[in-house]
Amino acid sequence: MADWNPALYSRFEDERTRPAHELLARVPLASPNVVVDLGCGPGNSTELLVQRFPDARVTGIDNSEAMLESARKRLPGVAFSLGDIGNWQPDAAPDLIYANAALQWVPGHEALFPRLFALLAPGGVLAVQMPDNLDEPSHRLMRETAAQPRFAETIGDASRLREPRKPITAYYDLLAKDAAQVDAWHTVYQHRMDSAGAIVDWVRATGLRPFTEPLGEALRADYLADYERRIDAAYPARTDGRRLLAFPRLFIVARRQP
Amino acid sequence: MADWNPALYSRFEDERTRPAHELLARVPLASPNVVVDLGCGPGNSTELLVQRFPDARVTGIDNSEAMLESARKRLPGVAFSLGDIGNWQPDAAPDLIYANAALQWVPGHEALFPRLFALLAPGGVLAVQMPDNLDEPSHRLMRETAAQPRFAETIGDASRLREPRKPITAYYDLLAKDAAQVDAWHTVYQHRMDSAGAIVDWVRATGLRPFTEPLGEALRADYLADYERRIDAAYPARTDGRRLLAFPRLFIVARRQP
Repeated sequence: MADWNPALYSRFEDERTRPAHELLARVPLASPNVVVDLGCGPGNSTELLVQRFPDARVTGIDNSEAMLESARKRLPGVAFSLGDIGNWQPDAAPDLIYANAALQWVPGHEALFPRLFALLAPGGVLAVQMPDNLDEPSHRLMRETAAQPRFAETIGDASRLREPRKPITAYYDLLAKDAAQVDAWHTVYQHRMDSAGAIVDWVRATGLRPFTEPLGEALRADYLADYERRIDAAYPARTDGRRLLAFPRLFIVARRQP
Repeated sequence: MADWNPALYSRFEDERTRPAHELLARVPLASPNVVVDLGCGPGNSTELLVQRFPDARVTGIDNSEAMLESARKRLPGVAFSLGDIGNWQPDAAPDLIYANAALQWVPGHEALFPRLFALLAPGGVLAVQMPDNLDEPSHRLMRETAAQPRFAETIGDASRLREPRKPITAYYDLLAKDAAQVDAWHTVYQHRMDSAGAIVDWVRATGLRPFTEPLGEALRADYLADYERRIDAAYPARTDGRRLLAFPRLFIVARRQP
């Protein structure tokens, strides 16, 4: 897959940063020493960590060079490194592992979550937020559009890139046995969008990428137009003419025994 | 119905106050003059308003004298008055009407929401949080228990006391046309409870009241035991032995045109 597009990703930065704020607000730590932002993207979440914990050693990890470059520009004082979350190992036990909108791209959650939790220092916190929108019209319609004969062969099974979601209780069960505290919740935001096209732009920066990347230019334009027609029907205009993009996200904050 | 029990209600105060915090965090006002806490209960939400807006004139309205008495003890400097939200009229146009876990008890949302919104000063904010748990096992099982012949005649249709929920988009539509901004979202908390009995205690202070109040002492004990058995089965122990009480809540923050 081609590298990420930080500019397109950042177009809805307020909306994308809100869950990062809300996740951080629930982290029960006063002054952690070692803080890691796993899947830091363009550094918007890392910036929140630096603001809240100015005395911590904060590092950001991502597997996209374009995102890291954008993050380094934003926060010159922070160490950003290329790395894959799936086999990432910290050099010092973190007091906080923070993963905002990242782990949904990493396979094998049953092993991953306990592994990350075990990497923490005693009393440390694993804080995770993941989109849980695979059953929303936005994502269902990506698959329906892709299933049409003229796209199906080229796109293939694009859904395979995303880890299927587990019920929130399953994540709780993976961590609770060894935790002092687990706080789990789900939020469905209703993002107020100007048009069907704005919804398409939102997902083009993330979830739509595995569907559109394999297509040539003409077929991609065809795919996007077809997808936008479906989005237009699935997200009708409200009384103020806007569209509401329902966006469910899952949150887990687990603290290790001190 | 007998008056509310502030002590029982306050037993889970941390969990009950969290949505009040999260609602307030989204209120886009710096220094409102007139602030009203509609359905203020024992004053836990009012306290948050006073902390955030120390220079505002904050008043609390509730239809329970027991709750108001408890609130006055907590916040001697605040004016608390007896009143019904359904026909409440402010003496000065509020900059903020804040209603945390209150409007679900008030019938006729299609008229109520626009009416409250129209009472605001220009640029004012209506901030509402309502439990949305009528379809959760906790509430479904209240009705199933009550439907048994030995309870049905005495309890009657206890559900009629709660306004049936509308989809969140319907609340958006009621307010958006005349609003500068509407922020709507849904959160499902997973409250970590020690036992099935603790879940029963939680709902005994609020949603269970219309079911148990009409019963005599012996029948009430019978109802509670039967209900707790069902709760025990519906909320199985997790890997740490706790139960997770899923608790959905709906949030709306709407700002009038300045």
